[in-house]
This record gives sequence, C-alpha cells and structure tokens, in this order.
Amino acid sequence: MEESALKQAWQTVTVDLGDRSYPIYIGDDGLSDAAKLRQMLQPCIRGQQVAVMTNDTVASLYGDQLSTALQGYSVDVFVMQDGEQYKSLETYTAAMDFLMAKRHNRTTCLIALGGGVVGDLTGFVAATFQRGVDFVQIPTTLLAQVDSSVGGKTAVNHPAGKNMIGAFYQPQCVVVDSTTLQSLPAREYAAGLAEVVKYGVIADAELFAWLEDNQAALNARDAAALAHVIKRSCEIKAQVVAADERESGIRAILNFGHTFGHAIENLAGYGTWLHGEAVAVGMVMAGRFSECLQLLPQGQTERLKQLLRGLQLPVALQDGVDSSAMLQAMGMDKKAMDGKLRFIVTDGFGTARVIDDYDRQALQAVLAEFC
Amino acid sequence: MEESALKQAWQTVTVDLGDRSYPIYIGDDGLSDAAKLRQMLQPCIRGQQVAVMTNDTVASLYGDQLSTALQGYSVDVFVMQDGEQYKSLETYTAAMDFLMAKRHNRTTCLIALGGGVVGDLTGFVAATFQRGVDFVQIPTTLLAQVDSSVGGKTAVNHPAGKNMIGAFYQPQCVVVDSTTLQSLPAREYAAGLAEVVKYGVIADAELFAWLEDNQAALNARDAAALAHVIKRSCEIKAQVVAADERESGIRAILNFGHTFGHAIENLAGYGTWLHGEAVAVGMVMAGRFSECLQLLPQGQTERLKQLLRGLQLPVALQDGVDSSAMLQAMGMDKKAMDGKLRFIVTDGFGTARVIDDYDRQALQAVLAEFC
Repeated sequence: MEESALKQAWQTVTVDLGDRSYPIYIGDDGLSDAAKLRQMLQPCIRGQQVAVMTNDTVASLYGDQLSTALQGYSVDVFVMQDGEQYKSLETYTAAMDFLMAKRHNRTTCLIALGGGVVGDLTGFVAATFQRGVDFVQIPTTLLAQVDSSVGGKTAVNHPAGKNMIGAFYQPQCVVVDSTTLQSLPAREYAAGLAEVVKYGVIADAELFAWLEDNQAALNARDAAALAHVIKRSCEIKAQVVAADERESGIRAILNFGHTFGHAIENLAGYGTWLHGEAVAVGMVMAGRFSECLQLLPQGQTERLKQLLRGLQLPVALQDGVDSSAMLQAMGMDKKAMDGKLRFIVTDGFGTARVIDDYDRQALQAVLAEFC
Repeated sequence: MEESALKQAWQTVTVDLGDRSYPIYIGDDGLSDAAKLRQMLQPCIRGQQVAVMTNDTVASLYGDQLSTALQGYSVDVFVMQDGEQYKSLETYTAAMDFLMAKRHNRTTCLIALGGGVVGDLTGFVAATFQRGVDFVQIPTTLLAQVDSSVGGKTAVNHPAGKNMIGAFYQPQCVVVDSTTLQSLPAREYAAGLAEVVKYGVIADAELFAWLEDNQAALNARDAAALAHVIKRSCEIKAQVVAADERESGIRAILNFGHTFGHAIENLAGYGTWLHGEAVAVGMVMAGRFSECLQLLPQGQTERLKQLLRGLQLPVALQDGVDSSAMLQAMGMDKKAMDGKLRFIVTDGFGTARVIDDYDRQALQAVLAEFC
C-alpha cells in the first residue's frame, strides 16, 4: 500500500533498568492504526481494567482512536482541564476519587494520553494508587515525546514550586506517534525543540550541528526530521536515566538550563511561559554562565542563541524581572542542596557537568546581564 | 547506676533490603536519654534540616525530649490532630504546605514521632516530597512498634477505603522505646497485641504458646515481656518483608485477618474500631474460615479466641452488621484481585498462605455465623 510505504518504520529504544526496563516505540501511525496500537498496549495491561487519563483538548483529537484500540477492556476515561495549572494536588485528588469511584483495583493500567502535564500527573497517580499500579505513556506533544514521558519522573506542582511533589516511577511502555505533532500549536512545538537542543548541548555535538543544518525541515515538521530527533533524544535520555535512575549524580545534567528556567517559570506564574520556552532562555543563561566561568569558549552561547532563535524560541527574559527575585526563586528550586545552588555547565557542546563550587560574582554578572 | 541496670539492653533487628537495609533499635530509654537518641538519629540526618511530624497528644508527651536530642539542627515541628480520620489527603497536603513554607530541601530528614497514623502519613510525605527524602520512625504505640513502622508501607486513607493512596518507601532507621507504651490507653495497647498474636498464628507457634502462658505479664505491660514480643515481632516482620518487599507474594500473609478486619473498620466508619481490634475479630473470622475449609483443625479458632479475650480484645462483631455489606466492603479492599477476593488462611498455628480459589459457601457460612 502506497500510503504505508510513506510512513517511517516503527523503531524501539529500550530504557535499560533491570526488571523495570521498558520499550519506547517511535513511529507515526500508532493512533490511526488500532491493531498496531493494541499490539503495543496489550502486554502492559494485566487485568481487564484500563483508565485513560487525558485532557479535554487531547480527548477530542485522539480519544476515539484509543478507545477503538482498547475494545474488549473495561475502560474509564478521566478528563482533566488542559494547562500547567491543573498539574496540582487538586487534580491528583480528583483522579484518586475517580479511580475509587470506578472501583479500579491493583491490576488496573493507567494510560496517559497527552502532554507533559497529563503524563507527569498520571505517573504520580499510578505510583501512589494502591501503592503503585501499571501505567503507559502516550505522549502527544514534542516536549513529552523527547523528555517528560521517558525516565520515570512523575510529579505535580506545589504553588511554591514546580514538581515539588512526586515519585520516581517507570511506565510499562511509551508509545510515541509523531503524527500527533502536526496538530500541535506552534509555541508548544517550538518549546519541545528546546529540549532537543538541550540533548545536543549536553551529550551530542553532532546532533547540535544537525539541528543547525536542518532548521527548515524541523520548522516544517518534516516526518523524517522528526523521526531522527525524537529517536536520538530518547536514546540520550534513556542512556542517562539507565546510568542514574534517581538523579543522585549524572542524571542532573538533563537539567541544563532548568535551574534558571524553573525560576523564570516560577516568577512569571505557571502558565505564562511554556516550560520549553523558559528552558530555552535558561540554556542561554547557563551558556553565558559557563562562558563567564571560562569553561565554554566565548561565542558558543551566541551559536546556541542563533539556533534557538531559528527554531522560534525566546532567548531573553521579559522586562521587569529582578535579579534578586531570580536568585530567591532559584533558592527554592529543589536542586538546591542545603541552601547551596548547583548548576549544570558545559565545557563545550556535547558535554555537561554539575558544579556547586563557583564564583558567585559570575552568577551575579549573568543575572545582571539578563535581568 | 542502679536505674539503668534495670533497663533492658538495646537490641538491633536489621531489615535486610540490600542498599535500602536499615536497623530497628529496640530498648527502653531512647526518649529519656538524649545522648543515646542522638547517637541513633545522627547517621540518618544528611543535612541541617529536620522536620518532626507528630500529633498533639504525642507532642505534649515526648516533643521536648526529642527536641533536646536534636539540638544544633534546624528543627521544624508539624503537629497534626490525633486520630485515624486525619490520615487523609487533606493532612498530607497540609504537611506538604508546611515543608514548602519552611523551605525544606532534598537533604531534609522527616522524623515520625507517634503511632501508625503519624508513621504512615509521614512515610508517604517522605516518599513524595521532592520525589523522596530521608525519614525515621519513632513509633510510640505498640501497633506501630511491632507492625506499621517496619517494612516501608506508607499511605493515607481515601474516604472509600483504607491505605488506598501510598507508596513502598523504607525509613533510614526505626527507634522503638518501649517505655512509651506505659502511657498508652488500654484499648490502644490491647490493639497492638492483636498484631503480636498474628505473628504467632502466621509464623511462630512457639510465640503463640508463649503469649498464652504470659498473658498476665503482657496485660501488666511488663518490660521484659514487652522486650521479648517486640523483638520477636520485628524479626518476623523483617524476615517476611526482606523476602517480598512489594507484596507480590509471601508478604500477603501479614494480612491474616485483615481482609475481614478492613471491611469491619470500613463499615463502622473510621475511628469506631481501632485497627487492631478489627484485626482481632478479623483473625477469629479467618480462623473459622480456615476451619470451614477443613484446613485448620477444629478447636484451634477457639484457642485463638481465648488468647485474644485474655488480652482484652474483641472477638465478635457489633450488632447490626449485615453479611452482604461485609462482602461488598471486602470487594473494595485493595487485596481483591480483579474482583476475586484473596484470603489468608492458616493450616495450623505457625503457618499461613494466600488462597484465591475456595468454596464460596464456606465464606458465606462464616459471614452468617458472625453477622
């Protein structure tokens, strides 16, 4: 059949975590091909019960397709409102009430259908409902496909800080259908690319150069370009997570740009910046910080800025952000160890490391430059 | 010094869980001897921050003693109200708000000072605050000392079922000071003995016989008798937990009497029965069920009833409990696998196993006998 001949072949990346290992399936007809989707989901469902957790936007786009694939199971659908502000203990409580009211038991399987908010919240519900039930991620945003759905970080936000309440809990599998990206709003799509750029900076100079050379294809959401960056991103993330599941060491490099980024999100109030947008600016700040500490050669941050701009991402703070407020917001960041701030720096694209002993003046200089 | 010569020597039971192994210290001057207590706690506290989680009753009895032992640390105290109805998502949320307001970070250590409610809730907060921080259990009730503080089951209740929301999460250590039992109300003390009896039934016929022979000493809260039963109970629990941390198999035998017991608690409304009281009745029912299935020799349940009665525990349901309501309440129990109820039965004191294939008539007969 000609149509399917145009499709990218499905690929599998494995997250290697011993008896908690799981596959990430990457392709582009997972939601339109019910038989294919069912084939991927079936091994993850132990009993007869399934709870699909999604939001109103995604439910209307893909809810029916998922239901078709789940025929024969007892399926309940929990629909939350769309938005970062709903990644809260209130929604968590509502989800628990829902599962109890529908009498789900320990053999149930939760399926997260949506972006990072749906995935993080569903994962945390799965981690704690009856002390842990199975769950599957079907991420529908680029950010979720290349980052949040992989690695087992689950959480909800607290009014005083992002992801402050959560658990490390791995899914049974992740199904990435890149066709869902075609319906994504432009800002959200670009925000996802920020994390792809991050993988280039911290782990793969070749990927970084590839992104520089293929901006047009990425901006056009070209299927082959997407297949390449999603697979490479998942491979890098899987490798880092396998080396350090609970972030006691190397995994922290995945937070490049995030110490600044979380503070930016926090100060503006959740929902003002998209996570990836704040991370884009945060990465520019982290790049400048690396330069100020004379770790990264001068000019590299400019290169990073060019790439991010080319991918339609912001590279500067909005007016009116105060550097002391930034510092305070970073102090509340959960990556602060006993009051001492840790930062991820790069010594050159393709490599990154954590530092907690640095020139405080350099930090002040970077904040002054951006605020 | 003569006084300390009268004290029981401190003993250590280790819960063997690889890199999550931890000691249970058992003695009788942990809260009065600040230096001794500090010596046990210090290795568990990584940073400068400590959050003591307790309730109003226990805080007034032992709060000052714990504060003395923690001099030099930055200590915040979260005081919840005393009672099973406060083991809720509401209290959990309040505890999270407290830790955020006090700016606790990932190196904080939570110390649960109290009974099972405080311990279960604190453990769940520790498991999920910033995706997991260290915690210590200082159980002050017999139930918590011989059961809930050991093994890493943490949870809060949902209005529709006990312990429905939680995680498996191990403490850094458990400090059991048996002198706290002297101030325990009679009902709570007896309720703790129910779990001790359970260990005899499921794992140690010798312990069961010892309890029959030493009822007077136990009812008098004799220090040597308490030291014996606490240590033996912790040893049995530690052994079962080490064999099956996440209750995928053998650990379920610890729930002997609990499928009936949880239904009893649930039907009466939380707070009417003490957990151990409901378990006492539940064990008699589980014993009768084992007899009806011709697994346990006739007359053994009578022996169990005599022992429980001798230890001031209830052995029958209150009037007005309906057997169909009991069945329904058990169906919602989280030990129900895909609608099929599992039960723990005994083939003779000292041994227990899980069954899920049994004569439904026998279950009906037991319910009819008790309701």
